[in-house]
Amino acid sequence: MGMTMTQKILAAHAGLDSVEAGQLILVNLDRVLGNDITSPVAIREFNKLNKDNVFDKDKVTMVMDHFAPNKDIKAATQCKMCRDFCGEKEITHFYDVGQMGIEHALLPEKGLVVSGDVVIGADSHTCTYGALGAFSTGVGSTDMACGMAIGKAWFKVPSAIKFVLKGKLNPYISGKDVILHIIGKIGVDGALYRSMEFTGEGVASLSMSDRLTMTNMAIEAGAKNGIFEVDDQTLAFVAEHSDRKPVVYKADEDAVYDEVIEIDLSEIKSTVAFPHLPGNTRTIDEVGEVKIDQVVIGSCTNGFYKDIEEAASIIRGKKVAKNVRAIIIPATQAIYLKAMENGLLKDFIEAGCVVSTPTCGPCLGGHMGILAAGERAVSTTNRNFVGRMGHPESEVYLASPAVAAASAIAGKIVSPKEVL
Amino acid sequence: MGMTMTQKILAAHAGLDSVEAGQLILVNLDRVLGNDITSPVAIREFNKLNKDNVFDKDKVTMVMDHFAPNKDIKAATQCKMCRDFCGEKEITHFYDVGQMGIEHALLPEKGLVVSGDVVIGADSHTCTYGALGAFSTGVGSTDMACGMAIGKAWFKVPSAIKFVLKGKLNPYISGKDVILHIIGKIGVDGALYRSMEFTGEGVASLSMSDRLTMTNMAIEAGAKNGIFEVDDQTLAFVAEHSDRKPVVYKADEDAVYDEVIEIDLSEIKSTVAFPHLPGNTRTIDEVGEVKIDQVVIGSCTNGFYKDIEEAASIIRGKKVAKNVRAIIIPATQAIYLKAMENGLLKDFIEAGCVVSTPTCGPCLGGHMGILAAGERAVSTTNRNFVGRMGHPESEVYLASPAVAAASAIAGKIVSPKEVL
Repeated sequence: MGMTMTQKILAAHAGLDSVEAGQLILVNLDRVLGNDITSPVAIREFNKLNKDNVFDKDKVTMVMDHFAPNKDIKAATQCKMCRDFCGEKEITHFYDVGQMGIEHALLPEKGLVVSGDVVIGADSHTCTYGALGAFSTGVGSTDMACGMAIGKAWFKVPSAIKFVLKGKLNPYISGKDVILHIIGKIGVDGALYRSMEFTGEGVASLSMSDRLTMTNMAIEAGAKNGIFEVDDQTLAFVAEHSDRKPVVYKADEDAVYDEVIEIDLSEIKSTVAFPHLPGNTRTIDEVGEVKIDQVVIGSCTNGFYKDIEEAASIIRGKKVAKNVRAIIIPATQAIYLKAMENGLLKDFIEAGCVVSTPTCGPCLGGHMGILAAGERAVSTTNRNFVGRMGHPESEVYLASPAVAAASAIAGKIVSPKEVL
Repeated sequence: MGMTMTQKILAAHAGLDSVEAGQLILVNLDRVLGNDITSPVAIREFNKLNKDNVFDKDKVTMVMDHFAPNKDIKAATQCKMCRDFCGEKEITHFYDVGQMGIEHALLPEKGLVVSGDVVIGADSHTCTYGALGAFSTGVGSTDMACGMAIGKAWFKVPSAIKFVLKGKLNPYISGKDVILHIIGKIGVDGALYRSMEFTGEGVASLSMSDRLTMTNMAIEAGAKNGIFEVDDQTLAFVAEHSDRKPVVYKADEDAVYDEVIEIDLSEIKSTVAFPHLPGNTRTIDEVGEVKIDQVVIGSCTNGFYKDIEEAASIIRGKKVAKNVRAIIIPATQAIYLKAMENGLLKDFIEAGCVVSTPTCGPCLGGHMGILAAGERAVSTTNRNFVGRMGHPESEVYLASPAVAAASAIAGKIVSPKEVL
């Protein structure tokens, strides 16, 4: 029986000729990731294993991003625990304040993931790296601990939904709109423990940022992973960021899918997820009058350079609406620097936005823009659960950078067209 | 009997020909200030007074800076309370995220204080505006409430210490070193409820930033206020930032001082305040080996453009030491923008620093760089009390931007000369 892209990567990393959905396999890991929230739990578990060292000091990565720069004493204590552990174990890829970035933007940028890799991370949005044709998925801190110890993890091989993309996105429509559209269509459990495999002639027209945004949110449909077919754009991206050789896994022609869904990219409209689920979507023309208090542009979902650039192109020369706080958070120091050098940060500041140092910050109610009771935010982040960005009586509307930027200017949720 | 500068300002604002130390007087206020921490308390008190409006909607100012952009739900709720109050009372000078800055840097920049003004603020470092030849002092939130209601406040007229400055500072020595030297000399209660009046031919050589830093820390010697004699530099600064006409008050020739202290600026060395008091000072050559974990360059004390520029000049082309987090916080959006346009922020980022949006942040243990147990920071802020920047077992060393920048590179407290 033919295998999906995901199944082929897993089989190869398990040393098996073939695997099938539902099979339990032990898989070799190319990278084990943790952040400042999940790593301390993993470190405590690791320390119970009486291992002197991690399985490979080059293949364990910790990124201080969630509540860093340290929000409070607890955050400081957690970061210190990670810093001390990585120092003691001589872990190569420890990213602290200053080399920082949001983990899922930082790893591709630093070349720490290439096509064909298997990556686990103690963070649900680890599925992001599927954009590079890797198998990557979020795990618990205990799995991270065992992964650090032996470089392997058990998986139940997932079945898959195949998304066949065709056509091309219209201006100011991006990967965020596509994935929100999909989650709206299939629901937040629509891909439960399955792979979301993106293929078709439409892939070529999607930028790497679009793809990273889409695989990032695979977990919001319950998926085990999201993955894009590797093309020239992927290979160029990998070559630019890493010296390692990518391995390209293509699905077999006779691969079996639970479902095949066709998406015509040219039909996708700006899409907004209303409170309190990413699947609670409306197209921009169905939104109605929703006044807002805050806009957040950033996160592992939409803090890439192209996102910042698109937002700046809309905000440039305009002013943020009275009583709206607009917070721009480039996902990494490199993106921050590039945006600064190209004048984008200036555009934001002159419009009345603030630009934060890279951090997950408000996305998960951490810091740098928490909402009070009754407040509403439009955010380019990935989750809008009750209380996600602060008070349980606040509301988060998920949208693309273009819609978020336009909404900052208008003071309510609008299409980019309304402010251009 | 002759009057000091402070006494002359107070007399004029009380409608009296003369006042003397110890006299209780009712004084007209030119400005009443609060921040996101203190204003909510003041608003609650104000609401008990059954007044429909504040005494003058142009003379009340609230600045969201301490835990903004909102650190947590409590911070969000406090900012919302200020925002709603200022909206309802139509208060002109409400500064939120995006128009933001640290209050004591923002008010002079926005021209909201000129020479001869009387300003109260519900923040102890309100004494900063003495650099402009104003009388300004920190008050409690209840005084702020009454000040908002009637535009007046009771004061006991302070006596004064006269500081006669002569000579000129050496390179990489700044106002921070002078005020730390003074506090080290007279102690943290050395000027208790007195004015610190800075005069002498040495004043001319001090930049406005130097002066703002020095008056900012008057409270750290227990002073009621710090004040500089107005000169051409002051008048040029005021004219650049405000349309209002400054009023210059000079001390009478026969003014009586509790003490006169001469300071030769040319003899001031880089000075560091060791934990846990601003008066616990050592000159840089007495510091010894003090390894550090974090550097903070910013705050109402040292987040001015000249401070950022001096720090950048030292950090440029070098790398922050391993295991040191270097956090740069320009005090206002305008300073951030200017530092960005002049390439300073690029210097910081390339060296491995992070640049935060304006906030008081770590200075008072708020957010954006809190310390864990056992960690040490060199900081350009104004207080190093136990637990001020985080854990009660952390340590803060107060220093100038030049020393802080050099220490970030060296990984321990050093003179700028060590890294140049």
